[in-house]
Amino acid sequence: MFKGNCIIAQSGGPTAVINSSLAGAIEAALGSAAINEVYGARHGILGILQQNLCDLRREDPASIQGLRHTPGAALGSCRYQLKKQEDYEQLLDIFRRYNIRYFFYIGGNDSMDTAAKVNRLAVEEGYDLRVIGIPKTVDNDLPLTDHCPGYGSAAKYLAASVLEMGIDIQSLITSTKVAIVETMGRNTGWLAAATALARRQPGDAPHLIYLPEVAFDMATFLTDVEEAYRQHDTVLVVVSEGLLDKDGNYIFNDAATQDVFGHQRLGGLGQFLLNKIETELKIKGRVILPATSQRSATHLASRTDADEAYAVGRAAVEAAVQGASGKMVALNRQEGEAYYCTCGLVDLDQVANREKKVPRTWINPQGNDITAAFINYARPLIQGEVNIPYCDGLPTYVNLVGHPVQTP
Amino acid sequence: MFKGNCIIAQSGGPTAVINSSLAGAIEAALGSAAINEVYGARHGILGILQQNLCDLRREDPASIQGLRHTPGAALGSCRYQLKKQEDYEQLLDIFRRYNIRYFFYIGGNDSMDTAAKVNRLAVEEGYDLRVIGIPKTVDNDLPLTDHCPGYGSAAKYLAASVLEMGIDIQSLITSTKVAIVETMGRNTGWLAAATALARRQPGDAPHLIYLPEVAFDMATFLTDVEEAYRQHDTVLVVVSEGLLDKDGNYIFNDAATQDVFGHQRLGGLGQFLLNKIETELKIKGRVILPATSQRSATHLASRTDADEAYAVGRAAVEAAVQGASGKMVALNRQEGEAYYCTCGLVDLDQVANREKKVPRTWINPQGNDITAAFINYARPLIQGEVNIPYCDGLPTYVNLVGHPVQTP
Repeated sequence: MFKGNCIIAQSGGPTAVINSSLAGAIEAALGSAAINEVYGARHGILGILQQNLCDLRREDPASIQGLRHTPGAALGSCRYQLKKQEDYEQLLDIFRRYNIRYFFYIGGNDSMDTAAKVNRLAVEEGYDLRVIGIPKTVDNDLPLTDHCPGYGSAAKYLAASVLEMGIDIQSLITSTKVAIVETMGRNTGWLAAATALARRQPGDAPHLIYLPEVAFDMATFLTDVEEAYRQHDTVLVVVSEGLLDKDGNYIFNDAATQDVFGHQRLGGLGQFLLNKIETELKIKGRVILPATSQRSATHLASRTDADEAYAVGRAAVEAAVQGASGKMVALNRQEGEAYYCTCGLVDLDQVANREKKVPRTWINPQGNDITAAFINYARPLIQGEVNIPYCDGLPTYVNLVGHPVQTP
Repeated sequence: MFKGNCIIAQSGGPTAVINSSLAGAIEAALGSAAINEVYGARHGILGILQQNLCDLRREDPASIQGLRHTPGAALGSCRYQLKKQEDYEQLLDIFRRYNIRYFFYIGGNDSMDTAAKVNRLAVEEGYDLRVIGIPKTVDNDLPLTDHCPGYGSAAKYLAASVLEMGIDIQSLITSTKVAIVETMGRNTGWLAAATALARRQPGDAPHLIYLPEVAFDMATFLTDVEEAYRQHDTVLVVVSEGLLDKDGNYIFNDAATQDVFGHQRLGGLGQFLLNKIETELKIKGRVILPATSQRSATHLASRTDADEAYAVGRAAVEAAVQGASGKMVALNRQEGEAYYCTCGLVDLDQVANREKKVPRTWINPQGNDITAAFINYARPLIQGEVNIPYCDGLPTYVNLVGHPVQTP
């Protein structure tokens, strides 16, 4: 039997259920005869480069279970991209030193790229290593999987919040007539679209939804808002942070700042659009910016999402033990009336650095709302609640101890 | 027995539990032999002036029960202040026409002022009317009551959100090092202070808290943030929207806009402070603006708060039936180890237009955090969860039918 140690790492922005995937991977690894030591890397790929590893065998099993409903990235995460070939070489050297034969990387697009490159180098150098990517992202933009763990919980949180805010603002006669909710979603509108799940009857919020998949035109937007204001008196508008004009430029562009991957940092779009509305239409409003809450509100996680996140973590380990490498676990939605997903495998190379956008046919022709096809897709993903223990009025979340691993 | 009809109305910004008070008042009124018809005014005082009333006897009792966990203001609310003496005269005329002998007004400072004036006019004109105010405000700024229904739920939501966001951002190594959470609180820091309940151990978020009760100094603030950044690497700062400088001017002043009461509209303070941090300290960050969610997130309401809100609604009706008028129901915290509040009555005149601030001794000397005395005060208010039924992945909230009342 092919045996060795494993490293599990988390990367990128956390989700409400990224630790559920971690729990699945840890529990499967602890239960596998093919895996000896189960190491966690602190803060993703950085933890490996810095040999900052922890021994997950020594954690309390109750803490591992608690990860299934704990926000953040319990091992620590990072936004760090290996750039130089030497970094990859160094990584492989460390894997050799610790006899790492299994590498599980929980992350999004950039992380799958890193995992693909590590896998390729190991193959080139003839080092027997099994690399499996575990998908996570609230953005839901990974290709070749029906959806991404993390998305369902963020979708549920946003839909519930917009439902509640919609009831609130529609019940109050005030001079504030427009509410703009700015959601995450750098290049895709999956999260903004999910707020449509809040509607229970015609006229309910959200009244307008704008996605980056459709070119944004300011004049049309202002006409839309004015029309919705006439119709509903109080208007709740949802905008995805990364709206683009017809030339592909960000509507609101804080050009001075870029993140470590060279992506433009967004934020402030909602306020920018509200200023336009107040100036041009003389209608007052306010901005709601859930920001980090979208990915950390584990108290309102989707049970479906949390369970699937756990399942993909387990599936990654099982696939690796069976010999797979260079793959990412994908969720495959099964035919039939009842919603059901199974775990499959797709090539990391096919996933890395590619983005899945909301299909144009799931957005209405005017580009200011979604269609029933999107609702049918998204509704099953927010089903069920996670039963979180409360203590002293607040959810109880776990920490890992993080027993350090000695340098060999 | 003194008998007549009653009107219940809701006013000002809704809270997560304002409808729980409504349910308490309706159920007590329906059960009282002294009250004949039980009317609701649509959109507060406006609904009375416009004779837009609904017959609450005809609502499904299950809907009334459902109000105990439904956000928004189910009768409709408004921000509208009676200004002219004629408005008050007109109000009393309408009361006479509908034989209204009981008036219950659920609201904050401004609403208690309105209720006080209505009561005074009725006394002057010899019209036998019993007016009782039912307190509600997330801001917790009403005097003569230990706390206000609505505050505990907003406090719990903010504390849980900051707990979750704190875990998230502290787990992620990124170039974004500062998170600024801007809370509601026009002149008082009760909501900002409540985020301190999120802390479980030293070093936990929030790392800095700024309240309007202490004059804000930009240079000191920047020094605080830089110091916290050195200490914690990732800093979560909470600011109350209404921070003032030593001369009493708003730090961020959108002077162009005022609300109907002449209060300055705030918002944008978080982004303003972040810009300062990014420019002066060269530390990157992001803003979280929960805005409306603070008062509408019934899915995370405090059980203590929801129950007390219901109790003050009932107590208002019971007091009126027993002959009280010109009073507001207040919550009186009882001595002893276990937290327990009873309902009492205070004069509306003593409450109207007065604000209760966070005591200076509950804020640390530096003015950037709260003390243990505040924690002892606030912790009991967030205890317990409200069991909300979910359907199709989202909380189920009720609507009232609103059967119209015919003009007599």
